[in-house]
Formats: sequence, C-alpha cells, structure tokens
Amino acid sequence: MARKIIIIGSGAAGMTAASTARATAKDAEIHVFTEDRHIAYSPCAIPFVIEGKIPDFNSIVMHQPEWYAKERNIHVHVATKVKEVDLDGKKVTLQDGAFHQFDSLVMAVGGNVLLPPVEGTKLPGVYPVRWISDGEAIKAALPKVSSAVVVGAGVIGLEMAIALKHAGKDVTVVEMFNQVIPRIYDADMAKMVQDHCESLGIKFQMGTPLGSINGKEAVEKIVVGGKDIPCQMVIMATGVRPNLELPNMMGLDIGPLGAVRVSPTLQPYRKGRLVKDVHLAGDVVMCESAAVPGPTMSQLGSSALRQGRVAGINAAGGYAIHPGVTSPFISVIGDIQVGGVGMSRGLADYYGLRTVEAHASGLTRARYYPGGKPLHVKVLADVESHRIVGAQIVGGEEVTGRVNWMAAAITKGVTVEEFLAGFENAYCPPTSMVRDVVCEAVEALASKL
Amino acid sequence: MARKIIIIGSGAAGMTAASTARATAKDAEIHVFTEDRHIAYSPCAIPFVIEGKIPDFNSIVMHQPEWYAKERNIHVHVATKVKEVDLDGKKVTLQDGAFHQFDSLVMAVGGNVLLPPVEGTKLPGVYPVRWISDGEAIKAALPKVSSAVVVGAGVIGLEMAIALKHAGKDVTVVEMFNQVIPRIYDADMAKMVQDHCESLGIKFQMGTPLGSINGKEAVEKIVVGGKDIPCQMVIMATGVRPNLELPNMMGLDIGPLGAVRVSPTLQPYRKGRLVKDVHLAGDVVMCESAAVPGPTMSQLGSSALRQGRVAGINAAGGYAIHPGVTSPFISVIGDIQVGGVGMSRGLADYYGLRTVEAHASGLTRARYYPGGKPLHVKVLADVESHRIVGAQIVGGEEVTGRVNWMAAAITKGVTVEEFLAGFENAYCPPTSMVRDVVCEAVEALASKL
Repeated sequence: MARKIIIIGSGAAGMTAASTARATAKDAEIHVFTEDRHIAYSPCAIPFVIEGKIPDFNSIVMHQPEWYAKERNIHVHVATKVKEVDLDGKKVTLQDGAFHQFDSLVMAVGGNVLLPPVEGTKLPGVYPVRWISDGEAIKAALPKVSSAVVVGAGVIGLEMAIALKHAGKDVTVVEMFNQVIPRIYDADMAKMVQDHCESLGIKFQMGTPLGSINGKEAVEKIVVGGKDIPCQMVIMATGVRPNLELPNMMGLDIGPLGAVRVSPTLQPYRKGRLVKDVHLAGDVVMCESAAVPGPTMSQLGSSALRQGRVAGINAAGGYAIHPGVTSPFISVIGDIQVGGVGMSRGLADYYGLRTVEAHASGLTRARYYPGGKPLHVKVLADVESHRIVGAQIVGGEEVTGRVNWMAAAITKGVTVEEFLAGFENAYCPPTSMVRDVVCEAVEALASKL
Repeated sequence: MARKIIIIGSGAAGMTAASTARATAKDAEIHVFTEDRHIAYSPCAIPFVIEGKIPDFNSIVMHQPEWYAKERNIHVHVATKVKEVDLDGKKVTLQDGAFHQFDSLVMAVGGNVLLPPVEGTKLPGVYPVRWISDGEAIKAALPKVSSAVVVGAGVIGLEMAIALKHAGKDVTVVEMFNQVIPRIYDADMAKMVQDHCESLGIKFQMGTPLGSINGKEAVEKIVVGGKDIPCQMVIMATGVRPNLELPNMMGLDIGPLGAVRVSPTLQPYRKGRLVKDVHLAGDVVMCESAAVPGPTMSQLGSSALRQGRVAGINAAGGYAIHPGVTSPFISVIGDIQVGGVGMSRGLADYYGLRTVEAHASGLTRARYYPGGKPLHVKVLADVESHRIVGAQIVGGEEVTGRVNWMAAAITKGVTVEEFLAGFENAYCPPTSMVRDVVCEAVEALASKL
C-alpha cells in the first residue's frame, strides 16, 4: 500500500517537504493541512508589497492548492486546523472531528508573533507582519494613517519602517535594546543601519520597552518611556516564537530556546527518546549551530526550505541529514543591503566563545570604476582555534554572495590563516576590488591573533 | 645589517610583494626594478578606459613611484631593465651595467602577449592589450578607425570588442577555436556569451586561425579562412605567455605549461633543487590546481596579488604558503557578467578527470521582484569522488559573489552531497531567490551521480 504522508503547515518548510516527499516517493499519498488560506508564499516579501516594490500580494504566492493537486498530486487542505496528533495511533484529528491515519508526519507548524505583555495589543490598528492577511490589512488601512509606530528594530521591523516611510507616513521605531538588529548584529554595524534609516527620516526610540498601546476604539497612541507617541497604526515586528501547541500536546521534548529539539534527521524526541516517523521543519525547530557547538534556531525562509527538503526526503523513506547551520541572512533596508552569518559578538559572548573582531571598508567595485558603493565588513574569529565564526556586511550592492561565501568558510571551520592563504576572490573592475574587502577584513583579523 | 630585497616587476604581483615585504620587515631595504613607466595599475581595466566607462588611464594607476618612496620607503626604478641575475653571487645587473647585491629576490616578471606566427603582426595599427601604453595608443588611434578586428575571443578580447563597438566601430572577433572563452568555458555557456555579443552587433569569425595581417604602411585588412576583412585596427588578445627571458638565463626549471615551476613557498627549482632566497609571483608562475591534482597557471590580477603577498612575506624572512588555486574569474561583457572557477569540462578532460555536469537557470531576485535578471549556472563534479570541481555562471548581476562561493566549495573539496546538505544561502526577495540557482544546479548534479 502506498505510504501516506501528512504535513502540517503550508509555509516554505511544509510545501518544500511536500514537494520533496513527492519527488522521493512517486506513489505516496500526500496531504497538507494548513490553517492559512494562502499557501506557498514568502512572508519576507510582505514589506516590499506594502512599499509598492512588488505590485500585489497575489504576486508573492508561488502556487495555488489546485496547482499542487494537478502538478504534484499533493492534496492541500486550506483553512483546516489539526486539533490533535495521536503519535501511538499514528493519526491526526482535525478541528471538525475528521481524522487521518499517517505512515509519516511532517510538522512544519511555524511560529507566532511574540507580543509584548502590554495593554492594547489587541486594539484595531495593531498588526503583526506574519501572514498575507496581515499585509492586506496593513495596506488597506494605510490611507487613513498619518503616523505609524513599528515595535521591534529587527530586519522585518526596519523593512516595514522603510515601507511606511516610503508611503509618506511619519514613522517611529521602538526598540527595547540599545541598537537595531539586536542579537544577530553588533552595535557598531547596527549603527550604520540606524544612521541610514534616520537619514531617510525614520525616528527611533531606543533602549526602552513599549509601555502600552492606547486608544478608545482603535490605536491613538503608544506610550514608551513615559512619552506619548500619537499614531494610527502599530506594527508588531517583535519576533517569532515557535508554535508549541501541538508539540506540547504530543509531549515532544522542548529545547533550551523554546523550540522543539530534533535529531540530525529532524526527528523529535519524547522523554529523551527519538520519535519514529515524525519529522519537523521550519521556525518550530531547534537545530545545531555550525559556528559553535550549541543549539540555535534558524527562522529564515531559506532555512525553512532546507529543513523542509530534509524532512520531506526522510518522511518519504529516503535519508537526508540536516547539519549545523550558520544562518546567513540578507535584508534590503532603504538603499543598503544588510547581511550577516554565524556569530555576532553578542551571540559569541552568550555561548561563552572568546572572539576577536576586525573591520574593513572599501567599495563594491575598483576604486576608479564609477558607481562603486561603500562596503563595510566585520569578521569575528574564535581566539582559541582561529576559526572564523561570524561576519556582518553592510553595502550598497553585491552583499548576498559575500554572505554566502563567508557562510561556506564558517560551515567548513576555516581558520583566518587558511582563508587568507586559500580563499580566492574573482576580480573585474566593474564588480569588485582586486582584493575583496572581505579579504582585507580577514587580514586585519590575522594581525590581532 | 638590514636585509636588501630586490623585486623585478611592478605589476600587481611585484608591488604587492614590495608592500608586503615592507610590512613584514620594517627595516629592510627594498628596490623595485621595472621596464614599464607606469606602475601599480590593473591591466584588466584597460578595456573599460577605452570604452569610456573609466575616464582616463591616470585613474587606474593606484600610486606613483614617489608615493612608494614617501609612504613605504620602497625605491621604485622605472624604465629600468634587469639584464642578468647572478644567483650564486646574489646580484642583479641592470641594462646600463650597474649592479645591486640582494639578500632576497622576488621575480614578478609577468608575461608577454603571445603573437600568432603570421605575417603583419608588427604593422602599425596592430596592438596588444597589456600595458597602459598599449591602451593609450589604441585610444589615440580610434578617431581614424571605422573597422576593427579583435584576434582572440577570451574575456579580454570580448571586453575589447564591446569597448570598440561602444565607440561606434564595426567589430569582428576572430577566434581559432569554435567557441568564445575557450579552455576555461564550455561551449554551451560560451554560446550565451557569444549570442549576447552578436545581439550588440559584434561579428564573429570562429574556428579559423588568423591567416595574415596586411597593409602597406599600416593595417588595411586581415585574412582569415581565405576571406578578407578590411580594418584599420587589429587588437591582439591572444593570451599571455610567461616571460622566461631571465628564468631561462638563470637556469630555473620550467614546468609543463611553459611557466616556472615553484614550491608552495613560491621558490623556483634549478635542476630539481630548490633555490634559496628567490621567490616568484604572478603570470610567470606555474602553480598547483586545487580542483585537480595537477599544474596550472593563474594569470589573473587577483592571483598576482595573492602570490605577491606570499612572495613578499617570504622574501622578508616571514613564512607563507601558496596553496592550490581554483582561479575564480569574472568579466563584464556588455550587459552580462561572465564568471567561472575551477575546471571546465574541457579542462577536466585534459586532466583525465571524468566529470558529470548539470545546469540550472533562474533569476537574481525572487521571481516576483521587479528587475531580476537571468542567471545561468553550470556545475561539474568528479564522478569518482563526487567533489565539485568547476562552475560557470552567466548573469545580469551578482555573479562575483557566487563565483567566490563556489571557489570556496572547490578549494575545500566539498562534495555535491555536502554542498546540498550544508551550504546555506542568504535570502531576501530583492537580492536572491529563496533557493539560489547555484543550489538548484548542484541538486540537478546530485540526481546524475
């Protein structure tokens, strides 16, 4: 009898798991259950639709359920909540009481926006940036908004601030930490990003947690550090917390970061024992870092895809491994690209890793080639092993490839000395300096070790 | 007494060796001898000056001899030919008979343009693209030229063809092989590049060696395959052959590719024995490939810099190693970027390596993000070890970082399976697809192994 695979969740992780399972097991019966009405889209694109760079929300949906049915023989059940999973009976029960047996289960249940414990987060005019429906609601509300507040200065928060500024709004970003992009960026590099946003007219209220959101029937103001900021819209870009509703019900072991602990095959544990025939992928997963021996989460669209692939192969009876991650990321904030990979200094300290850091600045093209844009690189190495453990790159163009390049170095445990000796860079005056700024930064690092 | 270091050659290799030697040995006496009048410039920039993208030749000169004297205490002797090197006496003799003792010698003597053995290569109107003086002569001659021929369809030849076309000339490229960018590119990828050049109005005469260059007092035509092509300018972009004048005189061992065989410290051999206190760098060097066990040359500006650094450190009494190379390159040809690294199929065959190949095409941005440009990736792996051994990438933007990324994978001997499992890519809709086209190509490769 054909293997029956059930997938919970229709984001990048879930839909990739479904497609990969199909490619691995041609005759499997595959069902996807999702509470969402839209599937297979990239939440990372929402700020760019609101900014108007992307024409509409339909554009960011890759495929409709009908496409999956027709092209891949995958049954997608939208607006369908899974109420319960019976691990021993290998059965999922839906909200309406219907149930489905499975041979193999993939849980790509994602996460929820972490709302700060303050008054007013449920008021009309307060929006997370998670689902297409959030994006649609924000876009529909814009005409009546003159002032907006973004809570949280992570990359999504900053992208949203840019989008709202671009739409002509007065924009204030509120961040409880003293820097933008806290945790994954260091203060020195974060300052460049904040300076750029300020140059575009965005205001910042740093180092103070949100006090409250107030209004009678809808948002009228926020209070932060005893100060009122009048506004008609509040965007909650406060991060994503793994959705543990089902994992908790199932008794799966939760790791130290509040995400589900998994094996290299992405199987969960229950009371310390590996669970058979269940795989996890995406924002709900606690995985291993490749930059440091320790747990991490990799809540990125690209990570969801990689994990979905591994979960899908394994769910279909194949074999794939999810090794440690470096979590390279890139964001476009106004006119600059902001990327990073591996450990920030702050993260390294958190893990107890002693690091040295170095910086280099230059251009994205040869000095004399017109149109070159500034490029700033920070690199970090572990003092003991000399391994490169992190990089942060801010530049006007061509940052993504450099981030991936450094991700490769970190993944392979390359030392500063090995990078300098063996990591070559391609050169042509219109696309790079003869010695890349990344190499300059690593050379500066070598002089400190 | 302070160590006396003599460097022959003032290109990227020589000047980097000088600067690195200075950084390594603060009190050394450092002399650079060069036949050129211009130093410290990038010949790769010459086509872009002729095209007018870079305003003038002065722009591409990084520093003048006076700067080196003042800032780095390096004595640069321009227009000065070294006639002889006495290895046993540790002495160089100049053209004018003066001589200098040395403790340490760096030979960065570069290469010469390889002229085909045909009639007419000395006629006025025939130009190599090697020195600034070549570039200046070409630029000065342009107003009287209506038709130009470029001999050699390597990247410099194609960049020159674009520059001349941009200047309004009728341009024909003559290539003895059946494809552009022979050796380092495969025919399928090369076709995209040729198609693009043809779309810009450049004509090609492929698969036929140049017959002759004819004219009374200056170039009037070339003959190729029995056909006359009238022209007033012929650009010889026929490749660079190591300048073996001094190495041969000194009795240094020459490797199978016609370049000087060196140790990992970049020291030459004489009758199979390592020569002390001499280091080589740049176009004259035969080095080891990191993609395959075998010799190669890496005649790139970026390689010259890397080798110059190692030679400079060692010449100054430090210790540095030049490991195997993958020779990543990038070129901008019209509106496309053309990059590659490691083995082409042709090179792999030459080395006796059995490879499989795969392709993927996509965009430089998310499918729905406006402005994304086509991106085509070809990857090759060794059948036996599954190691990735080569990549060729043609795209509208952001090719350089991808080439460096693949260079890292090849340098580290990464297999197709390891790349898929562990090489993450950063994602943001305006700068990449959620799964990079490079990863798609490697996935396609995996399905063939």
